[in-house]
Amino acid sequence: MAALSDEEIEARLSGLGGWERAGGALSREFEFANFVGSVEFINRITPVAEELNHHPDLEISWNKVLVKLSTHSEGGITEADFDLATRIDGLA
Amino acid sequence: MAALSDEEIEARLSGLGGWERAGGALSREFEFANFVGSVEFINRITPVAEELNHHPDLEISWNKVLVKLSTHSEGGITEADFDLATRIDGLA
Repeated sequence: MAALSDEEIEARLSGLGGWERAGGALSREFEFANFVGSVEFINRITPVAEELNHHPDLEISWNKVLVKLSTHSEGGITEADFDLATRIDGLA
Repeated sequence: MAALSDEEIEARLSGLGGWERAGGALSREFEFANFVGSVEFINRITPVAEELNHHPDLEISWNKVLVKLSTHSEGGITEADFDLATRIDGLA
C-alpha cells in the first residue's frame, strides 16, 4: 500500500476519534488500571498484528500504552495503519 | 529506597553488562526474532515486576524491546532498579 497524502490522512483521521498524527505516525495513548492491564492489552493486539502482518510500535509506562503506527516500507502512513488503528480501538 | 549517587550508579553499572544510564534511567535494548518474541519477553517480565512491585518502562519496536528503569518516587535510580535489571537479564 502506498503512503497516503496529507489530505487523505486528515480525512481518515477525522473519522477516527482519539488518534493523532505525530512524528510521521498515527498515535494514540490508551490507559488501563495498572501495568498488568497494559500488558493484557498488548497481548490482545499481538494476534491482530500477526493476522494483518502489520505491527505497531508500543510504549508501556505503568498503566499507559502509547501505540504508534506507520508503514516503514512506504515511508509514511498507509491504509494498513488505519486498518490496524480501527482494530486496536476494538481491543481497548 | 533512596536514589543512588552518581558514583554508586557507576560502580553498579560496571558489574552489569549491557545496561547504560540514559535520561535518568537505566536502559538496555534486547533483540528477539520477531514481534512475538518481543511480546513473549514482556510477558516474562510482568510477573517479576509484579513480584518486586517495581515496573519498567518498555518500548517495543518489532523485534526490539528497550527497557528503561528508574524509581519515580525517588526521582532517580535506586537499588530496586538494579535488582530488576538483574532479574530481567535472566529472562532475555
